[in-house]
Amino acid sequence: MGIAEGQSQGDPLPSWNDGPAKAAVLRFVRDTTDKSSPKYVEPADRIATFDQDGTLWTEHPLYGQAAFALARVGEMAPTHPEWKQKEPFKTVLSRDYAAMAKFTEADWLEIAAVTHSGMSTDEFVGLVKAWITTAKAPRFDRLYTDLVFQPMLEVMQYLRANGFRTYIVTGGGQEFVRAYSERVYGVPPEQVVGSSIVTTYVNTGDKPVLMREPKPFFIDDGPGKVVGINMFIGKRPQAAFGNSGTGVGLKSGDAQMLEWAQAGDGARLMMLVLHDDAKREYAYGPATGLPDTTVGTFSEALLLEATKNAWIVISMKNDWKRIFAFDV
Amino acid sequence: MGIAEGQSQGDPLPSWNDGPAKAAVLRFVRDTTDKSSPKYVEPADRIATFDQDGTLWTEHPLYGQAAFALARVGEMAPTHPEWKQKEPFKTVLSRDYAAMAKFTEADWLEIAAVTHSGMSTDEFVGLVKAWITTAKAPRFDRLYTDLVFQPMLEVMQYLRANGFRTYIVTGGGQEFVRAYSERVYGVPPEQVVGSSIVTTYVNTGDKPVLMREPKPFFIDDGPGKVVGINMFIGKRPQAAFGNSGTGVGLKSGDAQMLEWAQAGDGARLMMLVLHDDAKREYAYGPATGLPDTTVGTFSEALLLEATKNAWIVISMKNDWKRIFAFDV
Repeated sequence: MGIAEGQSQGDPLPSWNDGPAKAAVLRFVRDTTDKSSPKYVEPADRIATFDQDGTLWTEHPLYGQAAFALARVGEMAPTHPEWKQKEPFKTVLSRDYAAMAKFTEADWLEIAAVTHSGMSTDEFVGLVKAWITTAKAPRFDRLYTDLVFQPMLEVMQYLRANGFRTYIVTGGGQEFVRAYSERVYGVPPEQVVGSSIVTTYVNTGDKPVLMREPKPFFIDDGPGKVVGINMFIGKRPQAAFGNSGTGVGLKSGDAQMLEWAQAGDGARLMMLVLHDDAKREYAYGPATGLPDTTVGTFSEALLLEATKNAWIVISMKNDWKRIFAFDV
Repeated sequence: MGIAEGQSQGDPLPSWNDGPAKAAVLRFVRDTTDKSSPKYVEPADRIATFDQDGTLWTEHPLYGQAAFALARVGEMAPTHPEWKQKEPFKTVLSRDYAAMAKFTEADWLEIAAVTHSGMSTDEFVGLVKAWITTAKAPRFDRLYTDLVFQPMLEVMQYLRANGFRTYIVTGGGQEFVRAYSERVYGVPPEQVVGSSIVTTYVNTGDKPVLMREPKPFFIDDGPGKVVGINMFIGKRPQAAFGNSGTGVGLKSGDAQMLEWAQAGDGARLMMLVLHDDAKREYAYGPATGLPDTTVGTFSEALLLEATKNAWIVISMKNDWKRIFAFDV
């Protein structure tokens, strides 16, 4: 009473500035949970999907998982003397980040295959847990998991408090993200949909294990995110959050996931995070007017698509009061 | 109070006769849900996995999904005149069931590919729903969904009432089973793990769809069931229920799923349904002393494995007071 909206103690989104983005989230939840609303959704059907890299945590200048892979190359190098002469490993070992920025998709796939396989799923999860609780991200010199966007955590919590199940739908590795998703995002393993490699059941009579093979199984990116959503959830989300869309037909990133959410009936919420805050995080991508980078990007084409479809663009600079939990 | 165990109003498993199988289910739930038990399991980690064909419903003389595929061949035949001369379709159209019983895996895959693809996921689900609410199973002349095993439904409900999530982990088609799993078993789509074919995202500007392609993507059978459990659930089940195991190393069926459940710590429940009741359902498989059939079978090798690992064999004849809901 007299306290401006968004500043009351009961504000579910305290890290958001008042504005159209915050208002859209509040309206969406009201519409889908009010039994008298024509857009009411039964609790069992309330689904929201979130991209991870660049949407839930910082992806610049390198995806967390890429940093993990590069660290693994360093650890494995002593038993791979041939890497000193062999690309792309030679470049990784030389720490030539400018050259790494020019790696092709095939280079990354080779690095991922070598560093993410040849062990059981349990061993892999152990490696990820050890890395994620110690490795520091550039610029901030903090754990990668400290670079989670507080406003997005609030949206996830607010949706869950209103009966939604929150899924992470990531181009990153499913097993990688599951190693910390519950602790960091409150998202249990079975609600993480991601890319995966082939695993093979091995039972030599002792204890059976699943061995990770150096062979891709499913790429959860672009149109693959819709395939993954159908395969893992079997229901269409009412809300979808992303940040990137690049390539011919925007075939890499989150555009198709948002199209898929939008194509359903009733209340729909499609949002894209724009990295336009060089001061508090990073600013990148053509839509910012700043130079493009190698990471998943908010391209001009995605901006056009967002405008055409009335997707809501979240300006980190303007819409977010604070970005990280450690921001004052 | 004078009422024998298993006959009181509060009995959670009224369709089960007293005996070691029923006692094992009750003990397992007590051990995993009693906070003072050393085998207590947190609710978030309570997972039980169930095979479908032969474990939750009748699979004899033909899997429900195979019957669906054969019906589809009949419906599609007018636009495929070449099938009159082309195997395996010629045999299907001749209704020569003895010859169909000799179909190879490749024959079935060809039939499945043709009958299960070339349409959107929505269209496919519509076809399955229309079929499953009308098609009748042999011998009983009842809907396939009437041939669900009442004692297994009671186990699923009892586990859910005690905080377990019940998953169906089937060699059958994931999208097929999801079309009725919630209504019939109380299992929502996201808790059905099954075999799948490739789907492709198509957006021609109207409404995006996922098109089903005539190409297998994932075979959720044998060791594949463990791969599927890890991929879809990301947690190890404490309880697993199956009925079949055939082939070299028992590589088809449920053996690996039970091994995987058993390899965890604490309370574990591994159960196999033995079809030994020719009067009320069917008796088949070498372990019954009766001739083998084409359907997923309780082989001698599986019986040896069950004995070695102390898996509990459920005798339909002796352990189940009634088999179907329509039994008096």
